[in-house]
Amino acid sequence: MARVRARSAMSLDGYSAGPEQTLSEPLGKGGERLHGWAFEEAHNRQAHGLEGGQVNASTPVMVDATANIGAVVMGRKMFGGGPGPWNEDEPWRGWWGDDPPFHTPVFVLTNHPREPVEMEGGTTFHFVGDGIESAVAQALEAADGLDVSIAGGASTVQQAIRAGLLDELLIHLAPVVLGGGESLLGGLDPEATAFEIVAVVDAPGVTHLTYRLVR
Amino acid sequence: MARVRARSAMSLDGYSAGPEQTLSEPLGKGGERLHGWAFEEAHNRQAHGLEGGQVNASTPVMVDATANIGAVVMGRKMFGGGPGPWNEDEPWRGWWGDDPPFHTPVFVLTNHPREPVEMEGGTTFHFVGDGIESAVAQALEAADGLDVSIAGGASTVQQAIRAGLLDELLIHLAPVVLGGGESLLGGLDPEATAFEIVAVVDAPGVTHLTYRLVR
Repeated sequence: MARVRARSAMSLDGYSAGPEQTLSEPLGKGGERLHGWAFEEAHNRQAHGLEGGQVNASTPVMVDATANIGAVVMGRKMFGGGPGPWNEDEPWRGWWGDDPPFHTPVFVLTNHPREPVEMEGGTTFHFVGDGIESAVAQALEAADGLDVSIAGGASTVQQAIRAGLLDELLIHLAPVVLGGGESLLGGLDPEATAFEIVAVVDAPGVTHLTYRLVR
Repeated sequence: MARVRARSAMSLDGYSAGPEQTLSEPLGKGGERLHGWAFEEAHNRQAHGLEGGQVNASTPVMVDATANIGAVVMGRKMFGGGPGPWNEDEPWRGWWGDDPPFHTPVFVLTNHPREPVEMEGGTTFHFVGDGIESAVAQALEAADGLDVSIAGGASTVQQAIRAGLLDELLIHLAPVVLGGGESLLGGLDPEATAFEIVAVVDAPGVTHLTYRLVR
């Protein structure tokens, strides 16, 4: 059965991005330190059009994380282009390049809906103005039996958890502290949120933790 | 060479105790959910004078965590008795029972020094009024070549990290969120704090993560 899966890097102090996020530094101050392991790893490099890298304990985790995905949901901030209405003359097309690494429909949560944007390589951005339930429902339909990936950021992952829509959460726990930033799991209701450990993988520079959301 | 080691349970949202800590509920609201795995595990039960429990993947971790310890450092709140000066008529002797589970000298950080308190089973509480450096130095001397355990709470662990005194941190990561409470690693300086992954153990209801502090 199709699952709704999210994954995110996280620091030991619980942040999925550093403080002072800007359009030119979307990961925030020090946020790139969450992703050092991914930059070194071959499968992740390949997914972003880069050659080389190590095949290591992260590789099967990344292969699994990116397999069987039929559609993606992400927040407006992850799609980029800044807050507020789209520039009508030259509407933002994402910062993922002409051939984004999704190769599926991508449903972008926004208060400013617009027409879909078709990119190369099978990625089409759809803009959803009526919330996480609608976005996940549309993504599940588009995925046609495959899984839906909640790509982030933290706010979108939390919306999916709060709405009881998330089946599985993969945390890439990096051995760093960021001292502030975007909290991945802060502010959730402890009474309404229960996790089960599914898998733990010790890899170079990161620990991959997969949890099932119990409902 | 003698190492200074700390260990603490932590929730996925980064707390080592829940919100609303009181003298009668020192783990805070929901904080006992961080320790469910430990209550089930045989070695930990034995250390607290309880019988039974499972021998599982947590057992060797707990055996190692409690072995080779020659002295302990803890914060005043972990020793208990409430804040402020000690009750002179009936000074607090800890809430660890007549035979506390330490069996070594224990150095308690406090602004209110007093004479040492000798308990059964080899535990003697010493009260240190001049800070973490002094407490760790006294503990290392008392440990006589064995390791020093920083027992907690979070504030004491952070003081040891900030002072560059901690060699190793073992996090018992519980698959729960607490929604607030005492942050284990929040507020540390990212520029001054670097970790290396030493060991990762996937156990029932908990993930044991050992880090080396890099200086």
